[in-house]
Amino acid sequence: MTAAAHGSPTADLLAAFAADLPPDRVLTDPAVMASYAHDEAEWAEHGAPAVVVRPQSTAEVAAVVTACARLGVPVVTRGAGTGLSGGANAVEDCVVLSTERMREIVEINSAERLAVVQPGVVNDELRAAVAEHGLWYPPDPASAPWSTIGGNVATNAGGLCCVKYGVTRDYVLALEVVTASGEVVRVGRRTAKGVAGYDVVGLMVGSEGTLGVVTEVTVRLRPLRTTAPRTVVGFFDTLAAAGDAVSRVTARGLQPAAFELIDRVCLQAVNAWKHAGLPEDAAALLLAQTDLPEPAALAEAEAILEEFDAAGARDAVLSTDPVEAEALFDARRLAYPALEQRGEAMLTEDVCLPRGLLAEMLTRIERIAAEHDVVIATVAHAGDGNLHPLMLTPHGDEAAKARTRAAFDAIIDAALDLGGTVTGEHGVGLLKRDGMRRELGPGVLAMQRAIKAALDPQDILNPGKVLG
Amino acid sequence: MTAAAHGSPTADLLAAFAADLPPDRVLTDPAVMASYAHDEAEWAEHGAPAVVVRPQSTAEVAAVVTACARLGVPVVTRGAGTGLSGGANAVEDCVVLSTERMREIVEINSAERLAVVQPGVVNDELRAAVAEHGLWYPPDPASAPWSTIGGNVATNAGGLCCVKYGVTRDYVLALEVVTASGEVVRVGRRTAKGVAGYDVVGLMVGSEGTLGVVTEVTVRLRPLRTTAPRTVVGFFDTLAAAGDAVSRVTARGLQPAAFELIDRVCLQAVNAWKHAGLPEDAAALLLAQTDLPEPAALAEAEAILEEFDAAGARDAVLSTDPVEAEALFDARRLAYPALEQRGEAMLTEDVCLPRGLLAEMLTRIERIAAEHDVVIATVAHAGDGNLHPLMLTPHGDEAAKARTRAAFDAIIDAALDLGGTVTGEHGVGLLKRDGMRRELGPGVLAMQRAIKAALDPQDILNPGKVLG
Repeated sequence: MTAAAHGSPTADLLAAFAADLPPDRVLTDPAVMASYAHDEAEWAEHGAPAVVVRPQSTAEVAAVVTACARLGVPVVTRGAGTGLSGGANAVEDCVVLSTERMREIVEINSAERLAVVQPGVVNDELRAAVAEHGLWYPPDPASAPWSTIGGNVATNAGGLCCVKYGVTRDYVLALEVVTASGEVVRVGRRTAKGVAGYDVVGLMVGSEGTLGVVTEVTVRLRPLRTTAPRTVVGFFDTLAAAGDAVSRVTARGLQPAAFELIDRVCLQAVNAWKHAGLPEDAAALLLAQTDLPEPAALAEAEAILEEFDAAGARDAVLSTDPVEAEALFDARRLAYPALEQRGEAMLTEDVCLPRGLLAEMLTRIERIAAEHDVVIATVAHAGDGNLHPLMLTPHGDEAAKARTRAAFDAIIDAALDLGGTVTGEHGVGLLKRDGMRRELGPGVLAMQRAIKAALDPQDILNPGKVLG
Repeated sequence: MTAAAHGSPTADLLAAFAADLPPDRVLTDPAVMASYAHDEAEWAEHGAPAVVVRPQSTAEVAAVVTACARLGVPVVTRGAGTGLSGGANAVEDCVVLSTERMREIVEINSAERLAVVQPGVVNDELRAAVAEHGLWYPPDPASAPWSTIGGNVATNAGGLCCVKYGVTRDYVLALEVVTASGEVVRVGRRTAKGVAGYDVVGLMVGSEGTLGVVTEVTVRLRPLRTTAPRTVVGFFDTLAAAGDAVSRVTARGLQPAAFELIDRVCLQAVNAWKHAGLPEDAAALLLAQTDLPEPAALAEAEAILEEFDAAGARDAVLSTDPVEAEALFDARRLAYPALEQRGEAMLTEDVCLPRGLLAEMLTRIERIAAEHDVVIATVAHAGDGNLHPLMLTPHGDEAAKARTRAAFDAIIDAALDLGGTVTGEHGVGLLKRDGMRRELGPGVLAMQRAIKAALDPQDILNPGKVLG
């Protein structure tokens, strides 16, 4: 335990927590707290928390927030800390509220096609649990093995299959929320439809812990998909050809359930790590999956293949074997870990463009990489126009770091110039605040600030994030 | 023109409008204005507008709202006036802002699968226009031939196909909005995904003109469906059996693209009007449509038929002929006009229940009808658990009117008792304010009031509606 002078804010906090929470909920060891102080956005600043609390129930969360509201101490809520924008980063002397002990799956209801979970349930755990009931929770961020539903809700997480099935917000029916004053409220509903009052659920989703602390999530589910997907892959010599293929597939009215792109730098990294034998002279690899019932899946896959060929794919094939299909998708899954092998600092972008401008944006990213002398590897949810250019910087090289920062800003400039958004699915956190301000403009920012002030007048919920 | 003393609020308004708007935008004839004073909720009160304005551009809307904000005059925005909750009803001495002249389809973009429209575009006009580009706008309220996209946005309208494809909010990507101070802002985005800031678009959708005046709507589109749907119909002797059939279809993971119920009173009315020969001794008719690609559609239709039979359908058939299928759906479409033939006052309910409680709710409605001696005819979006009990009351019979009002309240009580919502898709307007307050509770109401006060501090946008 760190010493905290009696009467200091920290001492008052600890006294309040001692009264309301079992002792194992409270962490004060600085070394332990350090691991709770930031998410995976290496480039975002963070402070040191005064206390880390790990409540196990809604009542415990309410007690924490009530004490913080009374004492005027900021509350930074975090799930698994897999965020990439600094949204869960501690502010100095805050209380970090970790949902790691709130991992109960409260209900899985086949008749209503919904599940009720505590916020600390891991995405993949929920997916596995509902699959046993013949149900499917679609949102599948790359962090699904580790990230929590609460974190997914906080950032309105996307993933691969949102190109066809939508993002987290599309699956949140109801929330239990502890408000900024410590009150417990339930917003939303258990019914399929409902329009009673303003959409506070939608407002909470994606608000990154700045409007309330989510203590329970009711999610809508779909029937489990039972057919094996068909996969189409195509290597393209130019980014323009790959972009053309994406546009052609969209314009033809095809609806792949995943539609991904990885660029040359990623192909090279996967080869270097796994000796995968991927063609390193290709500009990009496109991967599409269809999950229609057969034989419609075959027809859709063949149509996608036709459009890949028409766009000038060098080598496009349709996989008929699920094992082979999974192997092809491995190039996508392995891209990030392969890049990590380089042992460099990583800064992940998350711009989202109108689909038709995918090739233009990829070309601009190549140019930005060259102009700033920065290695940029790009994976993209191509069907959504959502790009994740990943900038690699040798540790300790300050000049390279400055160039990377400039490239990051240049990518944001380019995305805004092309009518895109600065964040498609990772959230604003700290890294995208400036970009967001430019994207929204003063009128919309004023509305957002008014909403924040209305729901958190003391500004104690994750202060400084999103709106700054 | 009505006389308005110089210096009166109305005179000041007219002077402001004369300066900013062409003269044909402004209506002041009381007889003409009367037709703009209310929507189709016969039972909801309304006042007399001071002025009706029909702006044709965003700039004109901004001029109207700016003048009203300056003079402290309420603005009630209306589309086609097909609402069923009184949400567009005039308050005394307000400005009614009709979007009827804002009917331009600004853009239809196949590459991005979106359309941009002014708010006065009629739902069916948009659907027809995008169909020519191979695209589909799914939300299909029964009012689609007359209701406007702006009105659909204001109420977050549903319809038949939202059981599979979602409601209006799921299709609104971006909005241009005139705020309560008369400022023009653009919220949302043109990209498939985006998480830059709070979801102000979702907040505006369903807010019934109380948070801003929508002047342009960007909607997401889907590829046009090209296969003929297959239709399954089943007559059931008891409401319990019909409810069981709905539960069975859901539990089996089937996903009909429409799944409707009409009750015995509706069957009798359609027979009385059209001599349709429907079995009047059946308690309910269920209609399901599947739109999967063949042969999956046939398999799904057969599975639905199996579940209808397993639930004890008296007479269930699968239609293989599109013309015959449409004829079967006519019983659904004709239910309301058939009931109108009775020439009585109509009060439409809109409760939405957990799907599994459909039969229980239908049984309670029957009981409420008997207890209050009121004729109640029910159609339901069965697959969503969304019921529209329609209460019929002879004009001029005050005792019957009192009984109907009591039955209306009893249905709301029952819906809340069963965990449902007081409005699935029609909106709160005036008729559901009390029910909404009971549904949400004081904590959530306080959040909603805080949001309203943040975005409309003068309370000039459709005051009294939704929150009261």
